[in-house]
Amino acid sequence: MYSEKVMDHFSNPRNVGELPDANGIGQVGNAVCGDIMKIYLKIEDNIITDAKFKTFGCGAAVATSSMATELVKGKTVEEALELSNKAVAEALDGLPPQKMHCSVLAEEGIKAAIDDYHARQ
Amino acid sequence: MYSEKVMDHFSNPRNVGELPDANGIGQVGNAVCGDIMKIYLKIEDNIITDAKFKTFGCGAAVATSSMATELVKGKTVEEALELSNKAVAEALDGLPPQKMHCSVLAEEGIKAAIDDYHARQ
Ligand code: FES
Repeated sequence: MYSEKVMDHFSNPRNVGELPDANGIGQVGNAVCGDIMKIYLKIEDNIITDAKFKTFGCGAAVATSSMATELVKGKTVEEALELSNKAVAEALDGLPPQKMHCSVLAEEGIKAAIDDYHARQ
Repeated sequence: MYSEKVMDHFSNPRNVGELPDANGIGQVGNAVCGDIMKIYLKIEDNIITDAKFKTFGCGAAVATSSMATELVKGKTVEEALELSNKAVAEALDGLPPQKMHCSVLAEEGIKAAIDDYHARQ
């Protein structure tokens, strides 16, 4: 049912936790299952230099957030805003259709964190 | 949003993994979110002597499975069949209403594992 990459990022998630020196923090909720995602970004000179996440969500939410935080590190703010949940799911070699709603949490969390960063400037 | 007991069983889940010598194994899926739960029971002389679980489900599913496997250990098969998801949620000092569907996975997984045990006899 799940790809090897999904199981890898679920069993050994990257970037779990909080970022004490984050300057962009986003929290979003999932309408389908009621889960919560919190994304922490550290942005320097328009580049995302660090990213972490915390979630109460399921394995698919953990795996997509792990992959999404990996993908945005080193990117510009504009590049990160273009990262779609579909692209993250593809980087994980796909997700079952009924779990695609979980991958939206990571995308929306990153967008909310960047919004927060802009609001702080 | 979540009680201290829920956060404790989510952060330090008890009984995670497989039981190599299980004689009752149940796997169930959640119609609401598509998540999966697998429960392993070891039953000797009608008593559940060990219980473990594996899930791809969310934090509420992890916490309820952790608590439910703790609660059934040492119980008879008949007592375990009476364990409801509501009782497990109460043992965790409650769950938010929109996460009650997650707690059903543990109850149904235990029932499926006991069914499997009976089928093997
Ligand atoms: S949202 Fe699927 S088990 Fe909780």
